[in-house]
Formats: sequence, C-alpha cells, structure tokens
Amino acid sequence: MADQYAQFSVGTEPPALPPLRWEEPPEGPVVVLLDQTRLPAAEVELVCTDVPALVGAIQTLAVRGAPLLGIAGAYGVALAAARGYDVEEAAESLASARPTAVNLAHGVRRAAAAHRAAVGRGAGRREAASAALAAARQLHREDAAASAAMAERGLALLDELVPGGGHRLLTHCNTGGLVSGGDGTAFAVALRAHRAGRLRRLWVDETRPLLQGARLTAYEAARHGLAYTLLTDSAAGSLFAAGEVDAVLVGADRIAADGSVANKVGSYPLAVLARYHHVPFVVVAPLTSVDLDTPDGASIEVEQRPGQEVTELTALPRIVTSGPGAVGGMAVAPLGTQAYNPAFDVTPPELVTAIVTESGVVSPVTATGIAELCASSRQVTIS
Amino acid sequence: MADQYAQFSVGTEPPALPPLRWEEPPEGPVVVLLDQTRLPAAEVELVCTDVPALVGAIQTLAVRGAPLLGIAGAYGVALAAARGYDVEEAAESLASARPTAVNLAHGVRRAAAAHRAAVGRGAGRREAASAALAAARQLHREDAAASAAMAERGLALLDELVPGGGHRLLTHCNTGGLVSGGDGTAFAVALRAHRAGRLRRLWVDETRPLLQGARLTAYEAARHGLAYTLLTDSAAGSLFAAGEVDAVLVGADRIAADGSVANKVGSYPLAVLARYHHVPFVVVAPLTSVDLDTPDGASIEVEQRPGQEVTELTALPRIVTSGPGAVGGMAVAPLGTQAYNPAFDVTPPELVTAIVTESGVVSPVTATGIAELCASSRQVTIS
Repeated sequence: MADQYAQFSVGTEPPALPPLRWEEPPEGPVVVLLDQTRLPAAEVELVCTDVPALVGAIQTLAVRGAPLLGIAGAYGVALAAARGYDVEEAAESLASARPTAVNLAHGVRRAAAAHRAAVGRGAGRREAASAALAAARQLHREDAAASAAMAERGLALLDELVPGGGHRLLTHCNTGGLVSGGDGTAFAVALRAHRAGRLRRLWVDETRPLLQGARLTAYEAARHGLAYTLLTDSAAGSLFAAGEVDAVLVGADRIAADGSVANKVGSYPLAVLARYHHVPFVVVAPLTSVDLDTPDGASIEVEQRPGQEVTELTALPRIVTSGPGAVGGMAVAPLGTQAYNPAFDVTPPELVTAIVTESGVVSPVTATGIAELCASSRQVTIS
Repeated sequence: MADQYAQFSVGTEPPALPPLRWEEPPEGPVVVLLDQTRLPAAEVELVCTDVPALVGAIQTLAVRGAPLLGIAGAYGVALAAARGYDVEEAAESLASARPTAVNLAHGVRRAAAAHRAAVGRGAGRREAASAALAAARQLHREDAAASAAMAERGLALLDELVPGGGHRLLTHCNTGGLVSGGDGTAFAVALRAHRAGRLRRLWVDETRPLLQGARLTAYEAARHGLAYTLLTDSAAGSLFAAGEVDAVLVGADRIAADGSVANKVGSYPLAVLARYHHVPFVVVAPLTSVDLDTPDGASIEVEQRPGQEVTELTALPRIVTSGPGAVGGMAVAPLGTQAYNPAFDVTPPELVTAIVTESGVVSPVTATGIAELCASSRQVTIS
C-alpha cells in the first residue's frame, strides 16, 4: 500500500542500482524502483506493493523514460495478477497514468494479453500471474537487447554521417540506463562511442523544468567516465553557432506513422537549430515507441504538466523539497504567475535526419520507411 | 565601504522602488540600488558608498541590464568624484566590471569626460564632482526619454508587421523598468501595447540560468497588470509551432557595426526559431548599445560566467541562498560536473527583422542602415 523507502548510501562505483526490479520477499511480490526524483543526491529505492503506488511513481516521475515505462507497466500488471487484484482494472489505470509515451500502454497490453490468454486456456490464478510476469520479464530482456542493437546501429550511423570519429554529441533529457532494461536509447549510442574511443564530448542539456539532463544524464555520464559538459537548454544555440556540435541525439516518447517524433520539450528547438546549422538530428528509440495508430504529429496528445514545475522550486527534485535544507513551495516567479508547461514537443519528420531502432535505421524519415521497418520487424517477430 | 541593506516589505501597488537612485544623506553621497538578485521575494535596497561596492553589485547582477548599467557606471564616477577617490581609476574599474554591455563603458566615459572637462577648465573638486553628477543625471533622463521613444516606435512597428493588433509577444530575459531610467527597452514596447489595449499576451521565457524572466519580467508584468504567461526557455519552440507567437521582442547588450546583436543567452535560438516560423524578431535598444568600434558579431567578447550557476542552486537568487530555508551550495548535477555557461549569445543581422532605437528603426538590418542612423542621431545631438 504505502510506499516504503530504503535508503542506500551513494556509491562512487559504476554498479548502480537498477532503475527497476521485481522482488519476491515473503510478504509478497513487489516492484522496486530507483527513485529518479532523488538523483543524483541520493540513491533511494521505492517499493511498490500495489498498482496505485506504481501509478503514483509514474506520475511523479520517480520512474520515467519511454522504454522503462513500458517495462514498469508490464510488471505492474504482473504485480496486480500476483497479488490477486483485478488485472483489467489495473491495466487500464497503468496504461493511462501518463498520456504521451506509447511504450507504457504497449507494455501493459503485452502483460495483460499474456494473462488473459492464460486465463482463456483455463489456467489458475497463480499460473496466469506467472504468465503475466513471464511477459514482463521477456519485455525487460528484449529492451536490453534492443538497447544494444540501437547503440551499435547508432554509432555506425554517426560514423557515416560524421566521418573521422571524435564525435561531439548534444543530447537532451535522459535516455540512458535509467530509462531502460539496458544502456538506454540516445545515451546508449554516446556510451558506445565513448567505449569505442570515438566520443570527443557529450554536451548535456540540463532540460528544464525537471532537470533530467543535469540530474540524471550527468549522473550516468559521470558514472561511465564520459567527457561531458552541462549547459542550460538555450546555450545550445551558442554551441551550434560555434560549430561545436557534430550531431544531436535524442530519444522519443512516441513516433507517429508519418515519422513525427514526440519527445521531451526542447527537442523541437534543437531540431530547428540543427537544421539551420546543417547538423544531423538523430532520434534513437525502440520500435515499441512507434505508434502506427497515430497518423501524424498533430494527433499526438502532449501532456501538460503543472505550472508549479516552472514557477516554484517545489517541483524540482525531492532533493530540494524534503530533508534538511528543504525549500518546499519556494516561489521563483511572483505568486499567481501562470505557466505554460508542456512535457513534450513534436518534431516533424522533415527535421529528423534519421530514426535509429533496434531493427534498422529509417533515413530519410518517411511514412513509407517507417511502415516498411515495422512490417519487416513484425515478420521477424512472428517467424 | 561594506554594503548596507535596508529591508522593505513587498508592496502590491505599482509604485515600485526605482532600480537605482542617488541620495545625499549627511554621511555623504551614495548610490542606492534595488537588489535584483532578491526579487521578486523581497524588495531590498543595496546602498553603495564606494566604487568597489558598486562594481561588486554589477558583477553579482544586483544591478543589471544594458541601459541601467550605463547609468550605474556614470553615477559610480560621480560617487568617486564626490567622495574624493581617484576618478580615473574608478572609471577604469567600473568600465571593466562586465565585458559585454557597451552601455556600461559609455556611461562611465560620459561622466568621466564631464569631470575631466571641469578639471581642465580649472574647477575645484566639488565643482568637478558636480559636473560628473550632472552628466550622470543627464544620462538618466535621456534614458527615460529614449525608453518612451523606443516604446512608441516599437509599437508602431509591431502594428505594421502584425496588422490587426491583439499582439502575442514573446520576450526573453528582463528588459523593463528594472534595467532603465524609464520603462525599459523590449518590455517597454509590450507595456505600451498593453496600455493601448493591443497586447493579447506576453510570453515570458524564464531565462536560465539566473531566471531573470521568471523573477524580474514576471514581477514587472504582474505589477503592470499585463496578461502574461511564463515558460521554460525551450518550451518556446512549442509556442512557435502552434502559431501562438506574433513577434519576438528582445533587448541588446551590444550591437556591432554590422548589426550583429549580443543579448542574453537564448536570444539566438529564438531568432532561429522565429526565422523558421516566419515570425518577426525585433531588437529594442538605445543607440548607446550600438558600438561602431565592434565591426561584427565575431568581435564581440561574450562573458563566460561560473559553471556553478548551472550545476548548483547556489547561484540562483539570494532568495534561495540566504535567510530561512536556504540551500546554499545545493548541487543539482553530480559534484565535479563541468558546465558551459556563456552569459550572452550573438544573433547575426540576417536573423534580425528590425532594430528599434529611440532615434529610428533600422530594417532591414545592415551596416549601412546602422551607420546612417548613428550619423543622423549624432548630428541631432551636436546641433
């Protein structure tokens, strides 16, 4: 019911806590999350014993990032099944916890379908729950494998687009191991470049208002020993103007059938800057982020988040709002200030140089290219 | 010597404290500044009894904004003269307190020249000091008049560029009464539109890292009753994409002879977005921001500020770092994170739709147009 927190001391060693794991203590199964709102100041795990707790963690961004949301959704269904709650109701509440990332609904559907199929063939409660858990675990493994494949394809693309190596890459938001069963999406490409000795610098946008870049990407970059530099989102313009960016790498929360990309707000301005400066703008995302049922960018529902995230420091990580030195409710703007706070923006396909998935690269980005990639990959999955 | 603080309660009425005033208490003349690092939470005045205190206030941004920096520089020279310090030394230290705004050096030179001229014609210390003070006061008055003229010309230009009124204007950083002897530069145009019933909305970029938009522009907009909405800098892209911006209005810290505009970091990305969306990008600045000795954008020295302003909440307004609830030194990014933190960026003339000054509007922005405006306005001044 109520979330439990287990405090760990912050280690300086790479083996970080995983962003999500399934545990089965004697009291019953739980989904354990690394609370991303507390990073990098503290590595605190959040134990979800039921679906409302997990939905809350999704909504407060304790767990976040498109691929990981899919995994979390699937484990959430498994949790409801294992603990004997109404699985269909749980699936519905999980799938609608946040509107933009299609992966969330995808993961939920997959585990729920496995559960339903088991029930359909007359399986008992325990067996059906096991089927849901197996589906979640399978998705988790697939995501790690997808991550590795995207990293490899992404680096090969970079080497092709920007010959000579020594890549200076700009990224936005957080797309690393914290959002994935593996090394992530866009960040995984930078990490692969680093490991191959071909990363000159990772420019990290701080990513207002919740500072996922400053808090999470910088944390992952530091842990892995990358050469990285943090900047305010709007200082990226100066880097482009100075010729300091070879390519932009971002993830995606949803890719429409026409190749429009919904991603963290601030991605679209980078795409426009990249186009103006003739710099490649590359989207790295698993095929589960592609939603063929969303025809175009205009059809993507963009989550509007509370204005408080902009007007107050409250909404900043819990680092600031709890514990000693807290500044809960500290207004930055005058009281009563109204704020416009979309969580995402939409980049049209003509500004996207390439979409890198685990199954292949689409470039130029067209509806046909995306449809073909999805079709061929589904064939592979079916065969 | 040491700065003294006088605390005032925050009023809700428009008659705000002026951003800068000259006072002559029995203890000797002082320059009194409204400490802009404490706004909007507290209206606190900072009393400078000598030039080092004023230089410190300039460097910590307690006093800021190109036109006001010029006024502050002039009064600083007057202060040194009135208190019997070495005026030339004071002028040098004031002029170099911050590198980018040309107005600062301009204001300092003007008061120093008046002082020097008085000394040259045999004036005594008191009389020479009065000459410096008269020059500062004259600059102060001229700036207020320039502000009014820019507002008028700016609104006329807007009405021409975007016929039909009901302007939806996007602005960055703070360019209102806090940076000027009058209503400011870009903000003054929005305020004039508001007073004329032709402002539909002022979109206010928060302006990271120091949040001058959230703290100061929102404060001024609220005081004057404008319809305004705050946003993170990178959410501006979504507004452009949605067709919600009729024009961008920004100030300038320095305008080169070719029409390149140095302004708060984040202005250049807005100019690129504005161009991509066919939205006018208008710079509003007094002629004192034009520096004909700086041939082009590449020659403008851009101030690099401490990375701490990005990596820590320390560098955020003193609201956060002193008093109850302080979080001095609270790291947002992992310890040791390096940050790229230019204070300004440079927008090339081809992206600037128009430069509005008190003496006229340059559009299209060309070296010839700027040279002609400067020449005609200097003639007027001489005649």
